[in-house]
Amino acid sequence: MARPKKDDQAEIPTTRREAAKQERRERILEAAQEALRKHGPKGLSMRTLSAQAGLATVTPYKLIGSKAQIVQELLNQMSQTARSQLSAQTFNSPIEKILWLIQPTVEMMRRDPRYVQALTHILFTLGIKPQAHILTSLKSAVWLSVLEEAQAIGLFVPGMTPDAVLLLLVNIFDANGYQWVLGHIDVDQFEARCGFGFTVVLKGIVVAKHWDEVDRSIAAHRRRLDEVGGLSVAP
Amino acid sequence: MARPKKDDQAEIPTTRREAAKQERRERILEAAQEALRKHGPKGLSMRTLSAQAGLATVTPYKLIGSKAQIVQELLNQMSQTARSQLSAQTFNSPIEKILWLIQPTVEMMRRDPRYVQALTHILFTLGIKPQAHILTSLKSAVWLSVLEEAQAIGLFVPGMTPDAVLLLLVNIFDANGYQWVLGHIDVDQFEARCGFGFTVVLKGIVVAKHWDEVDRSIAAHRRRLDEVGGLSVAP
Repeated sequence: MARPKKDDQAEIPTTRREAAKQERRERILEAAQEALRKHGPKGLSMRTLSAQAGLATVTPYKLIGSKAQIVQELLNQMSQTARSQLSAQTFNSPIEKILWLIQPTVEMMRRDPRYVQALTHILFTLGIKPQAHILTSLKSAVWLSVLEEAQAIGLFVPGMTPDAVLLLLVNIFDANGYQWVLGHIDVDQFEARCGFGFTVVLKGIVVAKHWDEVDRSIAAHRRRLDEVGGLSVAP
Repeated sequence: MARPKKDDQAEIPTTRREAAKQERRERILEAAQEALRKHGPKGLSMRTLSAQAGLATVTPYKLIGSKAQIVQELLNQMSQTARSQLSAQTFNSPIEKILWLIQPTVEMMRRDPRYVQALTHILFTLGIKPQAHILTSLKSAVWLSVLEEAQAIGLFVPGMTPDAVLLLLVNIFDANGYQWVLGHIDVDQFEARCGFGFTVVLKGIVVAKHWDEVDRSIAAHRRRLDEVGGLSVAP
């Protein structure tokens, strides 16, 4: 996973001491992931975390800070991954690119469901209110850049600004993501529901010359929704 | 509020004893509302509740049952209110009727925000998982009947079944409702976001002859979104 980081994201260690510190930070974050995976949302206690990392209890505090800051760092990592995946992809149309936006989350839900579940759970249950904003703003940063690009090439009808479109897509994503975290739907259903929701929303916002492509996409996602039983679970 | 109940919803007390029991049940539910209003989600402890109602601690258990059952009864009340309001309204078009569906919630959020907030909070924090289904199924019952009616008169394009449309509307509603409960947006923003989301979704699902009406509605809701700063808060 040694992808080159973008310049604006890089934190280049300038001295050996910095490099060692950075290495310990990464160990702590890996330990945090593992603790969440193993012990669920409660695994993020500083005690569990330092035990997992084989460090003194105070080290995570010293190097990263509060639990909230660790959560923020973990979310930063996810956002960084999404950004890398996006830049590694090619798309046949701007519509395809927008529909792809849920993929980094879907992949992560499949690969590491317990971790994603625990992390999301923390955002809602530990009373770290600002974290919900952090999650959204990180997601938004990547998503918004794609939507701004789409607006620049004239994809949207007048009045449909990228921030307004973002609201609609994030609504669909959040509602179904929350259902997934609660265990009411599985990843396939999450993916199908988001895809269906995104395509219907796109029909309402793109200029007429893209309607054929969107209509085909709606029909495909509607079929997919039935295949995975996306409507049979109480929404 | 002495609206006649629909036959299929009525629970007609057949004896005096039944009537007295019913009266005490209602007192308990009123006490539950007041306890939630005053003390938040934690107000629903059986102790707080019976104190509030001036009853012995065991009475709520005996008459209604568990905390989960009290929550269910409170949700039933809200659903009943929504149904009454719906049947008391007249609409100029099926589109207007669908856009109206959030109104009972909006009114309740305005009139009794602390109660709605506490009740919703319980659904997510007390681990009463099935309750989230109950909430949705109650909402769905009213909403679905409106969507089935709309389908029957040919409002939707082929493939857009009422259950698929319901999913999209409930997604928009839930995502913004959750933001409201967390205190990230106010009622005006909730209303504007739902209205905007609903109209865009409608554009994607109604047959062409309704597009003019929907387009006007999208434009109006888009302006409203700006008026209330519905996009300025992190979505």
